[in-house]
Amino acid sequence: MSGVLYGLGLGPGDPELITLKTVRLIKEADVVAYPALVGGDSFARSIAQEFIPEDCIELSIEIPMAVARAPAQAAYDQGASTIAQYLSEGLNVVVLCEGDPFFYGSFMYLFARLSGEFTTEVIPGVTSISACAAAVAAPLSSRNEVLTILPAPLPTEELVARIGVSDSFAIMKVGRHLPKIKRMLDELGLTQYAHYIERASLPNQVVLPLEDAPEKAPYFSMILVTKGNDPWL
Amino acid sequence: MSGVLYGLGLGPGDPELITLKTVRLIKEADVVAYPALVGGDSFARSIAQEFIPEDCIELSIEIPMAVARAPAQAAYDQGASTIAQYLSEGLNVVVLCEGDPFFYGSFMYLFARLSGEFTTEVIPGVTSISACAAAVAAPLSSRNEVLTILPAPLPTEELVARIGVSDSFAIMKVGRHLPKIKRMLDELGLTQYAHYIERASLPNQVVLPLEDAPEKAPYFSMILVTKGNDPWL
Repeated sequence: MSGVLYGLGLGPGDPELITLKTVRLIKEADVVAYPALVGGDSFARSIAQEFIPEDCIELSIEIPMAVARAPAQAAYDQGASTIAQYLSEGLNVVVLCEGDPFFYGSFMYLFARLSGEFTTEVIPGVTSISACAAAVAAPLSSRNEVLTILPAPLPTEELVARIGVSDSFAIMKVGRHLPKIKRMLDELGLTQYAHYIERASLPNQVVLPLEDAPEKAPYFSMILVTKGNDPWL
Repeated sequence: MSGVLYGLGLGPGDPELITLKTVRLIKEADVVAYPALVGGDSFARSIAQEFIPEDCIELSIEIPMAVARAPAQAAYDQGASTIAQYLSEGLNVVVLCEGDPFFYGSFMYLFARLSGEFTTEVIPGVTSISACAAAVAAPLSSRNEVLTILPAPLPTEELVARIGVSDSFAIMKVGRHLPKIKRMLDELGLTQYAHYIERASLPNQVVLPLEDAPEKAPYFSMILVTKGNDPWL
């Protein structure tokens, strides 16, 4: 009988924000797989490390970071093929996923390749959006408000169109797009409602009003704009 | 010295989807508060019950369910005033929150009343959105896709405008709005991408293609529309 494939949401980075279910499944795993940068550093593994069994098989899937998508997809092909072999041998495989596996996560590329053939279960995790709102101490959305999640690489005119029909919004993957986003929010008169967040929930977390944001932002930074309309808040 | 107020995200309903941090803070709490229906049933308490210390003080905040908002706000006034008294006595108070405290959660009404005066910390939780995507086994959003969270009570024309500029979206609080939402998604040609979910992560979870959804939906039901555009998925 084949093993089961699990996509495990680890939450935003603080190991204490892992769920009980994900901890249990890591501890019970035969094979623990995770994405890593080429060279070997894996943020996912670092979040979960204290729960990884000593006697499990570890599988690091090194993903090239490039604008062209084919090299990364080739890495997922290779990772999926190794995982398929373990599953076929009856071993259970857990894939460690930063945040939530189905929320802008790379697990979906393994899911697309393997879930047709093998029993697959996804365990949801705390997203970076929730962690950022907690860090800023600002409610994301209440009652009948609209919340939109926007990736910063989108063209400015597409961002503006979506912001116009949102009450609150999060801009993800800010990185090198920070100057463009700052300019846009300034022109929209929204800077006063905006916060800049880096590494939410980690010891070196940074939370600043957007106007005090640094010149350069890492890829995993976010801008949260909460202009809720609830008169009771 | 005053106690600390914690808003604890419990996740979508499965007690195993509570984070390690929230479990620890419940176990250490002097006072455990939670919202309840008038009469006493509390979904939040039922999720967390196995972790509530036997010797803690429990505070049930009964919230009237009514279209008029003043009665509920009066209940938050009263709950906040009781909590303030405990905090002033140096007791730590945790408030149990379904899902994530700042994601459409009632905790924000206590937060608005108390965080100015008392040290307050929010512990993020897994949202029902992530739990629904895991239940449907459908990625929410990848790469540069836009994800929008829409409350079903909004007028149809407002929903349509927001759907037009989203790749994937979740419609929350479906309840009695189900016929309106079904009609709208049909007219937009989106029914084929839509799933109906009730009580995600609980033993009596329901997941159905939207076309098979029941006639009547409970308040805590959701429709997830995932029409992602990533050619690699």
